Amino acid sequence: MTEAMRVGVDAYPTRKADRPQWLERQDPVVYNQVLNQEVIDKEQLAFYEENGYLFFESFFTDGEVAAYKSELKQLLEDSRNTDRPEIVREPGSDEVRSVFAVHRSNEVFRELTAHPRLQAVVQQILGGPVYVHQSRINFKPGFTGKEFYWHSDFETWHAEDGMPRMRALSCSLALEDNTIFNGSLMVVPGSHRVFVSCVGATPDNHYRDSLRKQEIGVPDQESLTKLVEQYGLKMPVGKAGSLLLFDCNLMHGSSGNISPLPRSNVFCVFNSVENRLEEPFSAAQPRPDFIATRSE
Amino acid sequence: MTEAMRVGVDAYPTRKADRPQWLERQDPVVYNQVLNQEVIDKEQLAFYEENGYLFFESFFTDGEVAAYKSELKQLLEDSRNTDRPEIVREPGSDEVRSVFAVHRSNEVFRELTAHPRLQAVVQQILGGPVYVHQSRINFKPGFTGKEFYWHSDFETWHAEDGMPRMRALSCSLALEDNTIFNGSLMVVPGSHRVFVSCVGATPDNHYRDSLRKQEIGVPDQESLTKLVEQYGLKMPVGKAGSLLLFDCNLMHGSSGNISPLPRSNVFCVFNSVENRLEEPFSAAQPRPDFIATRSE
Repeated sequence: MTEAMRVGVDAYPTRKADRPQWLERQDPVVYNQVLNQEVIDKEQLAFYEENGYLFFESFFTDGEVAAYKSELKQLLEDSRNTDRPEIVREPGSDEVRSVFAVHRSNEVFRELTAHPRLQAVVQQILGGPVYVHQSRINFKPGFTGKEFYWHSDFETWHAEDGMPRMRALSCSLALEDNTIFNGSLMVVPGSHRVFVSCVGATPDNHYRDSLRKQEIGVPDQESLTKLVEQYGLKMPVGKAGSLLLFDCNLMHGSSGNISPLPRSNVFCVFNSVENRLEEPFSAAQPRPDFIATRSE
Repeated sequence: MTEAMRVGVDAYPTRKADRPQWLERQDPVVYNQVLNQEVIDKEQLAFYEENGYLFFESFFTDGEVAAYKSELKQLLEDSRNTDRPEIVREPGSDEVRSVFAVHRSNEVFRELTAHPRLQAVVQQILGGPVYVHQSRINFKPGFTGKEFYWHSDFETWHAEDGMPRMRALSCSLALEDNTIFNGSLMVVPGSHRVFVSCVGATPDNHYRDSLRKQEIGVPDQESLTKLVEQYGLKMPVGKAGSLLLFDCNLMHGSSGNISPLPRSNVFCVFNSVENRLEEPFSAAQPRPDFIATRSE
């Protein structure tokens, strides 16, 4: 670790102790409480602050969704026969699970991350200019789509990417209908207020496996049980074109998809320009730039 | 196959052709339309006939559920360190997935299968006396509970057990709350009206693997897609003590359970005494008696 790069202390130590700890959040959830746009109202902002997520039905028009889906189809076909590192496959098969950094490789998805209404909401919550920390398309095919186990994104971004504070959020744009049948995202509302540290040191080049199936950076079962007892579970579902925003530290996961209905989404993480990456807090090397932007 | 044992023709051939086929159901769904009990009414009977399932909130009292749960806990402990064939474990682990023939090995569960209100409904639908074709406890632990892929029970019972006609139904009694979060049963309502034949011959002693993870006797993806397009999906959920009845040929399955909330149920299949097992229709040997009753 280059000490010169370390700006602040480690506010959220993880993968360092041999038992999990619950640490209180030390950062705001909503950074600008003064409404300065017309896309969300006061109640929605309060809901986001309280629950750590916000769901919009039909945030995008049918036309926009059709364009994104057409682009996704092309991207999936282009991805099948390449071994670019941006393309992550299912554990135990060659099916494409995710394509990373689509805001760089694809003009349509680059424009999506600059979408004015989306930017307005994100900048309201994070209190100023943001940049894309990570973007990807996730494919969850029908019949065989695999689960994503519970995790806080921030735990990984802090440990492996060096994101210092909680001032980032994720957007998930549904390109197919999300239902209770096809492995939609489950969240623990309110869990963004506590940081559950994880046990186990980060192996070298951990990302190559963890993007397929994560084993380090996973919260312990006892903490998850307590969180769910305390806060419950929600599954925000809606039609293609709906948008889910959630705080970087919200505990979330999704079941496998045995239904015939595929579920794919565009996933994009915005980070405040005031919260640029430092050296990783719990890993020997930072992850590659296509997973965690350092260069823009 | 002993020809002397074959009473009728094979009304639902499966695992014989090299392409799947859709065959129209040749049997009634409700065998006695004249209401002769007070547990279900005319609308419920019509719902069952139309959709192939019926869900009852609080069919069993809290006291009954507590007694069953206590018995289940004991059964699970007794099951850990034995290698009785009635005990089926999770693929890839030693966790108990199912315990079969609990109506024989356990007095409390034997009484459950004779429960007067349950018997009244079952005999109404199947038109007369029934016997227990199969009983089991299914455990779906939190965090790691595995999926059950789509299937029609009747397809297996016909092929491997020699059940000649569709005159049986399954009861699933929830011992914990069933929610949209913990891998509850999904059904294709109306699918009980079509028999989707499967491709691939039954291997010898298939049951040893198929009870853990089924690969033969699984409907093809194209048929499942068409069924769901035509009929949609439902997930009947409710509190502990709720009861789900479903027709032997209803297409159903369930996702894995990553939630902390375990889901276990008592599962019991009743078959009409007019529909006793013959020789298997598509297997060299019948399955053991603890999976498919022949001896009572």
